[in-house]
Amino acid sequence: MLSTMQRRPLTVTTLLHHGATVHGRSEAVTWTEGGARRLTYAGTVARATRLAAALRGLGIDGDQRVATLMWNNQEHLEAYLAVPAMGAVLHPLNLRLPRGQLCHIARHADDRIVLVDESLLPLLTPLLPELPGIRHVIVVGGAQPPEPLPGVATHMYEELLREAPEKFDWPDPDEDSAAAMCYTSGTTGDPQGVVYSHRSVFLHSMQVCMPDALSLDDSVRALAVVPMFHAMAWGLPYAALMSGASLLLPGPHLQAAPLAEFIAAERPGTAAAVPTVWGSLLAHLDAYGGDVSSLQEVLVGGAACPSALMTGFEERHGVRVIAAWGMTETSPLGTVARAPHHAGDPGDALRYRSTAGRPPAAVELRLTNENGDVLPHDGATVGELEVRGPWITGSYHLTGAPEKFRDGWLRTGDLGTITPDGFVTLTDRAKDVIKSGGEWISSVDLENHLTAHPAVREAAVIGVPDERWDERPLAVIVWAEHTQHSGASAGFADLRTHLSDRVARWQLPERWTTLKTLPMTSVGKLDKKELRRRYAAGELDVSEVSGATAV
Amino acid sequence: MLSTMQRRPLTVTTLLHHGATVHGRSEAVTWTEGGARRLTYAGTVARATRLAAALRGLGIDGDQRVATLMWNNQEHLEAYLAVPAMGAVLHPLNLRLPRGQLCHIARHADDRIVLVDESLLPLLTPLLPELPGIRHVIVVGGAQPPEPLPGVATHMYEELLREAPEKFDWPDPDEDSAAAMCYTSGTTGDPQGVVYSHRSVFLHSMQVCMPDALSLDDSVRALAVVPMFHAMAWGLPYAALMSGASLLLPGPHLQAAPLAEFIAAERPGTAAAVPTVWGSLLAHLDAYGGDVSSLQEVLVGGAACPSALMTGFEERHGVRVIAAWGMTETSPLGTVARAPHHAGDPGDALRYRSTAGRPPAAVELRLTNENGDVLPHDGATVGELEVRGPWITGSYHLTGAPEKFRDGWLRTGDLGTITPDGFVTLTDRAKDVIKSGGEWISSVDLENHLTAHPAVREAAVIGVPDERWDERPLAVIVWAEHTQHSGASAGFADLRTHLSDRVARWQLPERWTTLKTLPMTSVGKLDKKELRRRYAAGELDVSEVSGATAV
Repeated sequence: MLSTMQRRPLTVTTLLHHGATVHGRSEAVTWTEGGARRLTYAGTVARATRLAAALRGLGIDGDQRVATLMWNNQEHLEAYLAVPAMGAVLHPLNLRLPRGQLCHIARHADDRIVLVDESLLPLLTPLLPELPGIRHVIVVGGAQPPEPLPGVATHMYEELLREAPEKFDWPDPDEDSAAAMCYTSGTTGDPQGVVYSHRSVFLHSMQVCMPDALSLDDSVRALAVVPMFHAMAWGLPYAALMSGASLLLPGPHLQAAPLAEFIAAERPGTAAAVPTVWGSLLAHLDAYGGDVSSLQEVLVGGAACPSALMTGFEERHGVRVIAAWGMTETSPLGTVARAPHHAGDPGDALRYRSTAGRPPAAVELRLTNENGDVLPHDGATVGELEVRGPWITGSYHLTGAPEKFRDGWLRTGDLGTITPDGFVTLTDRAKDVIKSGGEWISSVDLENHLTAHPAVREAAVIGVPDERWDERPLAVIVWAEHTQHSGASAGFADLRTHLSDRVARWQLPERWTTLKTLPMTSVGKLDKKELRRRYAAGELDVSEVSGATAV
Repeated sequence: MLSTMQRRPLTVTTLLHHGATVHGRSEAVTWTEGGARRLTYAGTVARATRLAAALRGLGIDGDQRVATLMWNNQEHLEAYLAVPAMGAVLHPLNLRLPRGQLCHIARHADDRIVLVDESLLPLLTPLLPELPGIRHVIVVGGAQPPEPLPGVATHMYEELLREAPEKFDWPDPDEDSAAAMCYTSGTTGDPQGVVYSHRSVFLHSMQVCMPDALSLDDSVRALAVVPMFHAMAWGLPYAALMSGASLLLPGPHLQAAPLAEFIAAERPGTAAAVPTVWGSLLAHLDAYGGDVSSLQEVLVGGAACPSALMTGFEERHGVRVIAAWGMTETSPLGTVARAPHHAGDPGDALRYRSTAGRPPAAVELRLTNENGDVLPHDGATVGELEVRGPWITGSYHLTGAPEKFRDGWLRTGDLGTITPDGFVTLTDRAKDVIKSGGEWISSVDLENHLTAHPAVREAAVIGVPDERWDERPLAVIVWAEHTQHSGASAGFADLRTHLSDRVARWQLPERWTTLKTLPMTSVGKLDKKELRRRYAAGELDVSEVSGATAV
């Protein structure tokens, strides 16, 4: 028997029309040095319509790629809407990538046009000779027309919009066609391209709006600190047009002081960023104060959420921190760590909230061992986390990378456990786990215990070669500012004692070092590859702090 | 360029697995004369698994139809999950339909097995001789095996489950395959079959959970008064498994007194029913009191929500009434009337909430005139409401009925206006509009004004033939219990004066009558077809109340 349902596609085009009408009075707010710029979604879509017409006029046709090199701002939102809705493919470039990777990615995606913030032109200009596919550069902001660039036509964004027709004949795209793409941050090799479909964007937006995710409706003001060049800003721009939540965009003002100012002025109820941003903001609020009373909760993802961050925000500033897990490959919403209804006392709830969370209905998770056997969800058995669902990637652009998939499931490279009710605890990246004498040591576990110590601001633990045990943990400590020591070794000894109450004796690191800051990747994740390189190159000043030896 | 996303289908099977694990500790609660029966979703899915195995054992294969003739209860929920998840098609039969229609529907759907509440066996038994396709009857509840029925094998539900294997090899259905079907209530002709797909059920469930719809997560207890045999209980059973909201099922106890008792005992935070149910409950609460303090809001749909119901619940019992509009053909969620963020004072908010609401992102609405021209959304122009979207029907089972569709849009038969921000106001059913002297009179408008009068409990207005004006309105009044008159005519004259302050003079009815109760259809909608029949047959005692004549 046949279903009688209409075969309407799920598309960004539908989102754009919905946002322009039903939520036409909600607004995007961009923070600038001079204060807030604001525009309604009706106005935003009117400008996106002119942008689509202008891009068509510059030759963008079919599913050609339109790249952006932009901060989170009004014009970036316009590109987020116009490019997929016109049938083309949006490709936000990560402005923090090294030059070589940026060139590789733009060539690999076959980008034809770049929209660039005027302040980021110095980043783009030297790359252009290596990017012959790019024929047009559209400069956003800036009062003067840019200097002519070799080999490309340059345009001023506002001028282009002014001259474009105000109507555009929006297509009705197939839901499986490409809407946008992002590259992974490439911590383990060349960046890989993930191509989102209209369907995946629409479904993911619905999930972002759900009460068990960000709970967005038109009464919410949502601050997107997470960059629009990183995993599609976790879907917030599209979810905002879907739900009517107003969208607060910080531009390049991502430091704690201007962020605190933006929050006090524009009063978001929710916000999303990686832990390092929230860590800086928390330190700023603790030191200088600030009005974050509008914030009911903040979403933390992209890296494990230190428990000190969670408790610090809640106890001292009344802001609930919600952890989430995802990847560029998962659109990115994979799990959200809200306490379940059946959690008992506050301690029980906090234990649930300190996990990586549980998946929504459309996302399926499983654990496998190195042989590919599927492991039980008993909250104890550790395996590699695999993911399946309609907004999870099933391959990579052009490269495919079949070794990253198993029977249609994405292999995340994360190790962890799953409880019977779906809560995931990540114990490590598969490549970061420390293999000591046939046993595994979780670097994440040691890091969590170390950062909970008041003398520690940040901590990283990596496996380093050891003759007897194959690998042993090296603890890399960034001391809290106020910490005074009679010598680093004394501090390390204190930390080792602190750990000895919390982990098995054979897991205690005997190698310790300190740094002013930890190396980070382009998307703000701890860069363990760089730490391993520095150790191998002898660049770290390592102390041996023994107590008893391992095992 | 190809999207790299996985092609995972959206299915009821996924919902079942999700509910059993992530929300395994949420519960279904069925109200009985002896109090609450409760079972977790883990337990519910375990029983649904045995049910699927048992149905397979009875020969159900492929997309064969499994009918239910049941109240809202635990076992009906098990059938809601097991039947679609095993790849078969669930067909809830409306137990309030006349015998002839029930037979027509069961034959038209080609039902093979019926699950029937023991208390409803007397309804089913006389139909069986006319339903040769039905080979098995499964009786739910009842201590004794039923009397043998001619031509069918009878089974006891619990016995069947006890003997069934506890494992079932769930398929991975195509998302476009049929999952369930419902027939329209057939107020204007033969009932028509609407066949929902796995995709439409899944997407609709997501929408039901959204903050701008019912806002469901695992902290919510949701009371489904709306019958599971009517428009799939507005999607609540599936949305409950998706979100982890616990589901409260009243069984046959739909009268105000047991409902009030159920609410006081099981403390739902939200609830869904047609206006007549809420009207009775409100009258009961006003008369006898009752603890509805757990209820934050109730969803009203299936018919226009009288404003007296809205204000009565809010002002006297602190329960917010949210109106919604939909049809069997729309799964049914079409619009929800929450006040937008930009609403000004409470009066402004109430004006928005008194509309039929605005659509979610996946549902598109438009207005057309009789020539098929698309009309502006200016809040003033009246046209026929047409709907498009992934959970809207595009035809009817076997009959097709192309006259109900235009360019892929469903013609709803409702007349109304749409504001620029998407709020729909329904002025009438196309067939109920009163055409008087070339002008249209909205029966809904007159009914709203009449029910706002304290002497009126219910009111209906129909068009009746008139020599001079083609049609004129006839007002049918059900007086409030406490109303005392010096004669009905005096009461009608008061109402006519009341109306004269509110509508144009040529719209004032001069024909009036009174009834003890209004005729209702099988799904609790005002049955204007029956009123028109009674008028034509001279069964109504009509008073002429003139004042001046029309125009």
